[in-house]
Amino acid sequence: MKLNKVLENIKIYEAGKPIELVVREFGIASEDVVKLASNENPIGTSPVVKEAIIANADKAHLYPDDSMFELKEALASKYAVGEQNIIIGAGSDQVLEFISRAVLDDNSSVLMSAVTFAMYEIYAKQMGAKIYKTASFEHKYDEFIEAYQMYKPKIIYLCTPNNPTGDATSREEVLKIINAVDEETLIVVDGAYMEYARAKDSKYAIGPNDLLQFSNVIYLGTFSKAYGLGGMRVGYGIAQPTLIGALYKMRPPFNISTLSLAAAIAACRDKTFVEESIVLHQEQLQRYEAFAKENGFAYIESYTNFITYLFTDDMDSTNIADALLKRGVIIRNLASYGLNAIRITVGTAKQNDMFFRHFLEVLDR
Amino acid sequence: MKLNKVLENIKIYEAGKPIELVVREFGIASEDVVKLASNENPIGTSPVVKEAIIANADKAHLYPDDSMFELKEALASKYAVGEQNIIIGAGSDQVLEFISRAVLDDNSSVLMSAVTFAMYEIYAKQMGAKIYKTASFEHKYDEFIEAYQMYKPKIIYLCTPNNPTGDATSREEVLKIINAVDEETLIVVDGAYMEYARAKDSKYAIGPNDLLQFSNVIYLGTFSKAYGLGGMRVGYGIAQPTLIGALYKMRPPFNISTLSLAAAIAACRDKTFVEESIVLHQEQLQRYEAFAKENGFAYIESYTNFITYLFTDDMDSTNIADALLKRGVIIRNLASYGLNAIRITVGTAKQNDMFFRHFLEVLDR
Repeated sequence: MKLNKVLENIKIYEAGKPIELVVREFGIASEDVVKLASNENPIGTSPVVKEAIIANADKAHLYPDDSMFELKEALASKYAVGEQNIIIGAGSDQVLEFISRAVLDDNSSVLMSAVTFAMYEIYAKQMGAKIYKTASFEHKYDEFIEAYQMYKPKIIYLCTPNNPTGDATSREEVLKIINAVDEETLIVVDGAYMEYARAKDSKYAIGPNDLLQFSNVIYLGTFSKAYGLGGMRVGYGIAQPTLIGALYKMRPPFNISTLSLAAAIAACRDKTFVEESIVLHQEQLQRYEAFAKENGFAYIESYTNFITYLFTDDMDSTNIADALLKRGVIIRNLASYGLNAIRITVGTAKQNDMFFRHFLEVLDR
Repeated sequence: MKLNKVLENIKIYEAGKPIELVVREFGIASEDVVKLASNENPIGTSPVVKEAIIANADKAHLYPDDSMFELKEALASKYAVGEQNIIIGAGSDQVLEFISRAVLDDNSSVLMSAVTFAMYEIYAKQMGAKIYKTASFEHKYDEFIEAYQMYKPKIIYLCTPNNPTGDATSREEVLKIINAVDEETLIVVDGAYMEYARAKDSKYAIGPNDLLQFSNVIYLGTFSKAYGLGGMRVGYGIAQPTLIGALYKMRPPFNISTLSLAAAIAACRDKTFVEESIVLHQEQLQRYEAFAKENGFAYIESYTNFITYLFTDDMDSTNIADALLKRGVIIRNLASYGLNAIRITVGTAKQNDMFFRHFLEVLDR
């Protein structure tokens, strides 16, 4: 049986190790394991969401409302856009997949920064597209436009704030890139962590209202981070109706489960939870910055719910990540992204205490 | 912006109307609306599943275990296969999508029966493949093999029991088709409704253990029907490891939400619920058969949780479906499948009473 050639070229995304696996593998009690690897919201599930899930727990046999009327209405009101501007995906991930499948083929290419969200590359490779990356992980106008002019990619990904690095690109810079690109290239502005950047410094705030004027731009958002629904898989794309209509053709029916839909609708209403998440995060992020300074590491200024520590040659991120894992501390090693660095989700005060304590021991300080 | 040509050719799947829509559109009180259109389990959600959902309701912020260790273990034990034989999809639907994307391109074709599950065609068209159908909705050996020899399709879909018709193909007949096809063609045996057929007549029972010997066959199953998890979107494919490995490359990470995973694991353990569902169904199915005979309609002998009524020219399925809808009875009109027929999910005694009462009124008998 002949399978499509593109398969040969695809690496599978490596998810953060779940706590249960570390318990099984290293025999550590689950209460001594701390997972700061997947940028989950450390506060947990909003009580409002929990209530909505429980209220709908006996509807597991019923297919969801595939028009997603209520969720679209809530998002349309949040962003002051029309419902025809919105498509909902199983995570913004799935919207990336729709985009890739609607636009790419094996004669096309895509452009992204040197270090950015791994799924851009995986979905593009599933379509056989060629991958181009700029030299820097930051989204630099000159690098993007030079590569754009050379390769004429069908998609440009702008991840702001960027994952897994944590830096952000200003609204001005994003718009400058968009304005220098013609309509034949689709630009994806991935704002998965935008709530954190917006709260930290308004010059990094960018959203659908800045972008809907462009027929070739789509804004992506997610409920997985600030809204605390990582496990529910709900994200969205906002763009002009023609593009949304095309992506709809790649959407499988019932792509959001009945309970995920109920959870996302509840989360939309619960502004307090998002605000509290950000306040806690900002307090705790300062501890990570102070810790880095005290111990002589570099870090990337973070506009997300995680922070990236950069190491010099005398320290190896793989050794550090392994040593932490054996102690029950799960963080993300960025060696596979070509960085001698680790990415740590900023957790609760208690989780962060555990990280600092174990990390100092690993470093033997 | 140039979109892929395949998009021009794709029709969007039309989901059954949700109850809320009928309430809004026709001003009928929700307790007077009965939905027998989507083959949902009329018993509802298993109490065991409900409990698992409630127990996990505060884990919505945590990504699921992407290895799906526990669910695979449960399925491996249910079917007496290895975990490396299993891939889990957001509904067996998503496994169909992986298959389509791993195997098809715009030079390939697929073969299916004249009337069968709509998503086979939609996913194949997303890849630009050509669609061939046999003359009959039943899966007839001669028709399949003749078309196979003529077109050499890359995929053959065998839906047994078949949806939306309800008939089944015997194990013997399925194996005869498989044995007449060479390894270059992938055969999908879609057993979404197999639990009902297996309980009714063992000659229609077919499963992974009959099929795993073939490198070019995949068996699909789902939790959406007999297990009562239609809203949770969990299904699976079972095949030899090489094929499963290839499909994995098209799987997005975290394709099953944290609560869907918990629900499916619980459902696997709850054999009583499935047995009770089938007993209730068999009792109520007889009422539909008796009703058809009493009122002079033909029906297709059903091996699923729904029944298809076939009309002669003096009755029009579209008029009947519309008249029922206005009375708050949602069933599936099969006109778009080229049949003058309606498909009715066999509901609870009370739901079926409502259907019979309204249907008689619509027919003015």
